Amino acid sequence: MRLSDLGEEALLDHVFDKFHLPKSGPGLVVGVGDDAAILDLGSGKLTIVTTDMMVEGPHFRLDLTTPYHLGWKAVAANISDVAAMGGLPTWTFASIGLKPDMDLEFADELFEGMTECAEKFLSKLVGGDTNAVEANSVISVTQLGEVEKDRLALRSGARIGDRILVTGWLGNSIGGLYLLLKLGLDEAAQQFGWLVDAHLMPMPRVWEARAAVETGGVHAMMDLSDGLGRDLPKLCKVSGVGALVYADRLPVSEDLRRAAEVLGADAVDLAAGGGEDFELLMAVPPDDVAKITRAVKETGTSITEIGEIVEGPVEIAYPDGTHKPLKGGWEHFK
Amino acid sequence: MRLSDLGEEALLDHVFDKFHLPKSGPGLVVGVGDDAAILDLGSGKLTIVTTDMMVEGPHFRLDLTTPYHLGWKAVAANISDVAAMGGLPTWTFASIGLKPDMDLEFADELFEGMTECAEKFLSKLVGGDTNAVEANSVISVTQLGEVEKDRLALRSGARIGDRILVTGWLGNSIGGLYLLLKLGLDEAAQQFGWLVDAHLMPMPRVWEARAAVETGGVHAMMDLSDGLGRDLPKLCKVSGVGALVYADRLPVSEDLRRAAEVLGADAVDLAAGGGEDFELLMAVPPDDVAKITRAVKETGTSITEIGEIVEGPVEIAYPDGTHKPLKGGWEHFK
Repeated sequence: MRLSDLGEEALLDHVFDKFHLPKSGPGLVVGVGDDAAILDLGSGKLTIVTTDMMVEGPHFRLDLTTPYHLGWKAVAANISDVAAMGGLPTWTFASIGLKPDMDLEFADELFEGMTECAEKFLSKLVGGDTNAVEANSVISVTQLGEVEKDRLALRSGARIGDRILVTGWLGNSIGGLYLLLKLGLDEAAQQFGWLVDAHLMPMPRVWEARAAVETGGVHAMMDLSDGLGRDLPKLCKVSGVGALVYADRLPVSEDLRRAAEVLGADAVDLAAGGGEDFELLMAVPPDDVAKITRAVKETGTSITEIGEIVEGPVEIAYPDGTHKPLKGGWEHFK
Repeated sequence: MRLSDLGEEALLDHVFDKFHLPKSGPGLVVGVGDDAAILDLGSGKLTIVTTDMMVEGPHFRLDLTTPYHLGWKAVAANISDVAAMGGLPTWTFASIGLKPDMDLEFADELFEGMTECAEKFLSKLVGGDTNAVEANSVISVTQLGEVEKDRLALRSGARIGDRILVTGWLGNSIGGLYLLLKLGLDEAAQQFGWLVDAHLMPMPRVWEARAAVETGGVHAMMDLSDGLGRDLPKLCKVSGVGALVYADRLPVSEDLRRAAEVLGADAVDLAAGGGEDFELLMAVPPDDVAKITRAVKETGTSITEIGEIVEGPVEIAYPDGTHKPLKGGWEHFK
């Protein structure tokens, strides 16, 4: 079997099954299967570890980003995983592979983006590794974080009847990507700066996540890195539940609607299927919706109730009454 | 300036200077500049974090290794950094980038090598990330470890008069590499299996390092990943000292001498300049040499006194009385 037939997520599951690798155990609160690993090193708080690689080609094209944005996003994607557990970022490590004929200026801007993203979320870049590559550049970040034991948010806690909340807007990032592909960096940034920013310089929802978990009401949480259509089914699977989301409740920005026209795409499809928004997806009990909504809004970020946790499959309901399986999103090997 | 003009190690130093990144501070005992970062997370012990990337092309060729060996070595190189601090490996994370048309069997063997190496040294693979790449495959490992505060060994503690010790043999790994390049995998493995093993399946010196630091006598330690000729100058630089090593004391194996004849190379040059032996390099006070030698030998590994820490430059002395600057080893961007 080829890796492309299996898919990247199935590969990690396959490997962990095959070699009987632990998903929990002494010192290991949570292993693979959530946004990050949770270790109990005996410090009182839990230690969060996540590692995420970005590869030239599947993840980025150097003509459609800047080195600064590339560095920012590589760190942001990892910090987003820490946020998704309810934690605070602490220490950042970056291993990069660049072509030897690249300018030092490129590396400077790349590291500027990485350090500025780390510092914005109170983490510090303190280690790494630099390597020469022949073809595709690569940036691999490892992010550490910490979370109080009673603030830890997992994917697995969703319960029937919970309401589903998302922060911010959905689909802006993939809208920005498609605009970049269609118009090029300069033109896309000029016409749709906000969507391009959403794609190139995502903001991990660290403070929003902290505000939410500090209410004590979050049953389950993850970040939307692969898109609602791929991520909500993951949360439901590990929670042993289903979900129903309403197409007309998805937070779709006016800019995305305008972009969808330019792209000949459907804005709701982009919102439901697009990845890399790095917004938070939460399952919360009905009685806590108001409290959590208020807490998150105080950080300056919007939050929207888009559906509920149910028995059965994961579906999206359209205004005409039809239900469809919720799917979409990104899969790198495929 | 191009990256190739600067070199990979200078790049990290340059970046840390440019962005004023911390090399120590609250919670950060040691940052860049040693084998691994040392964090104090408040658990009583110190937490070790190291990350090391292997890229197809500069680091490995798929026709000159097996997937198993590739996985082993990627983890071994990181565990070696933990050993170099005097620590024990605890948790392993692996981010990999493979081509979509690769067989699942390749990934299986790769992960088998990674998990077996981790488990041999009592670490557990508990997380990672899998990605598709277009050209060069890449394996980025992050290794955590722990060390008692009074057992931590740094590069910076060498003092004038200290003796310089190395474990095992030097040059076997580069000898193995040159044999692979000259003879191919099958032929080289058949004729010089031990040297090829040294290159493809290095053994991190975890137990040797623990035995040494538990004597309390180690002033400075690091692992020989880039070769004595590059690594000893690094240890000396951060310790503010020089060194004199004796060519005729370098532990050169009979196999390497035999290989050097086949290769038309000088065995001592290979031992002094070759990288990836992953042996330990230590500076210890003269009075502790016997104690440390005995402790390390009890693990079953040899240890050799090869010179001493002095004022002045880092040199190698030849039997004819000449002294030369000690140099050599690997530099990826160059």
